[in-house]
Amino acid sequence: MKVDQIFIDQAAGLSTAEVSDALDYFGLPGSAPGIRPIAGPRKLCGPAFTVRFAPVDTAKPGTVGDYLDDIPAGAVAVLDNAGRIDCTVWGGIMSRLAARRGLGGTVVNGVCRDTAEADEAGYPLYAAGRFMRTGKDRVQVDAIGEPVTLAGVRVCAGDFVIADLDGVVVVPAARTEEVLRRALSMQAVEQRIVAAALDGMTLSDARRQFGYHTLQRKPG
Amino acid sequence: MKVDQIFIDQAAGLSTAEVSDALDYFGLPGSAPGIRPIAGPRKLCGPAFTVRFAPVDTAKPGTVGDYLDDIPAGAVAVLDNAGRIDCTVWGGIMSRLAARRGLGGTVVNGVCRDTAEADEAGYPLYAAGRFMRTGKDRVQVDAIGEPVTLAGVRVCAGDFVIADLDGVVVVPAARTEEVLRRALSMQAVEQRIVAAALDGMTLSDARRQFGYHTLQRKPG
Amino acid sequence: MKVDQIFIDQAAGLSTAEVSDALDYFGLPGSAPGIRPIAGPRKLCGPAFTVRFAPVDTAKPGTVGDYLDDIPAGAVAVLDNAGRIDCTVWGGIMSRLAARRGLGGTVVNGVCRDTAEADEAGYPLYAAGRFMRTGKDRVQVDAIGEPVTLAGVRVCAGDFVIADLDGVVVVPAARTEEVLRRALSMQAVEQRIVAAALDGMTLSDARRQFGYHTLQRKPG
Repeated sequence: MKVDQIFIDQAAGLSTAEVSDALDYFGLPGSAPGIRPIAGPRKLCGPAFTVRFAPVDTAKPGTVGDYLDDIPAGAVAVLDNAGRIDCTVWGGIMSRLAARRGLGGTVVNGVCRDTAEADEAGYPLYAAGRFMRTGKDRVQVDAIGEPVTLAGVRVCAGDFVIADLDGVVVVPAARTEEVLRRALSMQAVEQRIVAAALDGMTLSDARRQFGYHTLQRKPG
Repeated sequence: MKVDQIFIDQAAGLSTAEVSDALDYFGLPGSAPGIRPIAGPRKLCGPAFTVRFAPVDTAKPGTVGDYLDDIPAGAVAVLDNAGRIDCTVWGGIMSRLAARRGLGGTVVNGVCRDTAEADEAGYPLYAAGRFMRTGKDRVQVDAIGEPVTLAGVRVCAGDFVIADLDGVVVVPAARTEEVLRRALSMQAVEQRIVAAALDGMTLSDARRQFGYHTLQRKPG
Repeated sequence: MKVDQIFIDQAAGLSTAEVSDALDYFGLPGSAPGIRPIAGPRKLCGPAFTVRFAPVDTAKPGTVGDYLDDIPAGAVAVLDNAGRIDCTVWGGIMSRLAARRGLGGTVVNGVCRDTAEADEAGYPLYAAGRFMRTGKDRVQVDAIGEPVTLAGVRVCAGDFVIADLDGVVVVPAARTEEVLRRALSMQAVEQRIVAAALDGMTLSDARRQFGYHTLQRKPG
């Protein structure tokens, strides 16, 4: 997995709403409901490093993993704990080390803990919520680098992840370039609508003039 | 719909808790669970301008509407998207224009997006949550100015809407004057109880002296 | 019920995550999902003063109680409203008086109101959420000082309650000393792991060296 700086630069100027509209334009899914900002800057983007957890195998217990050593700087850890809210798979040690190592952030399909430490470290952390009970001896790492599920959205290693105050969006790796390019062009149209309307045009006229109502609809 | 400045001035000094107690006194519903402050000042009041959305009619798709042009300054947009959390009916363009046009705020029975822009615009926005996927081509405006539902509460055009950090309360238009008047008188009693108790009286004595336990109960 | 200053001093330096791990070590429950910080400092600890509410008895209505007069300074009010989100059992008068009287904070298995006042008073308030409708004439005090339920966790009078940004943990009164002692020793180990890893050791090596993966597992 390589971290493509051009995508990160483009995504830094885009909102999840704009990227979601571009996904709609191409008929792609990717908007993950129920995952929200928990700590750190309310912005994150980068290619996914995926980790899937499963209930602990009591016959042969595994661990919650030391995968952090293997994540490249700039990548986003996407941890799939199946939406469980009864035990955490990310905590303070992880936030402090991930911040130090320059990771792009962490997104949890489940809950996380020590969230005050992530805030202090300025580390972007997204999850379904906060809790304090450890996942150790409750879940274990089941797969690394395999496709995972994030609130109904499929995430593969290398897929591009963008998150902000509104939540998390995932773009398939092979479509990242065209989706981000389309999002940037749609952003430009919306900016023209706002400018015209703030300048006195009715919203109705401004939207009609710039084709707002079909902006994210792909020409049939 | 006219925006009655006297009601807005009175409501500005009242909390949703005080108005809810006054509604209880008259045996009226109006407290809407699950709708919370999302952006802007944690205070909103004004008469409702109602918009109802319905799933898109694929045979003859409608739009998410340009109703913003028709809402008078001071009014509160109440958007009923049936509590859906999978697509938004309010976003950044709307927040910026609504702030510029002096609307009282927006309350969504559902989710909204571009919430950072609403914050920047200082625009009061209440909803069941945040998400980023557009409602365009998913829902369409079904009715404007008709009664709508807000988390189980009926809202008609012109009903008085008050919201703060605790959530949203709706007062029927025809009862607004007596409800706000009653809320102000109950507020005065509660202030006397707090003053007496902070002054050393037991809470039990203070409440008994000022009739706290039956304050919102209408004399039979 | 006495408020043991030694426990409060120890707990002030511990996170709920550390205490939860110590509870795991002894095979004890205590982590209460779904209860989150609402107002005031994001830290609370002290012995529980328990109050249970029940639906109002229409034949002989009771009150929401004046138990506040009986709670010693430093204690934490634990109010069990059965997780109800349709009416509140804690409001602004209570927050202001409780802050003045030096209570340790309030934890509600349910919702609370006038949360802006608790914030202004700097009073630690934890609950399942915010709402504004009063519990008066909807629920009444059913028991004081009896065992109650907090999001699935049993809380007895005098049990030690600790809360922070991640949520609320309850330690049985008879086990408080050993649980807090164990939490402090586990905290020391985690601090050595972080220090070693920030110093350049891989997380894998640091965790192996200090026995992280079995830290909260009691030696069989």
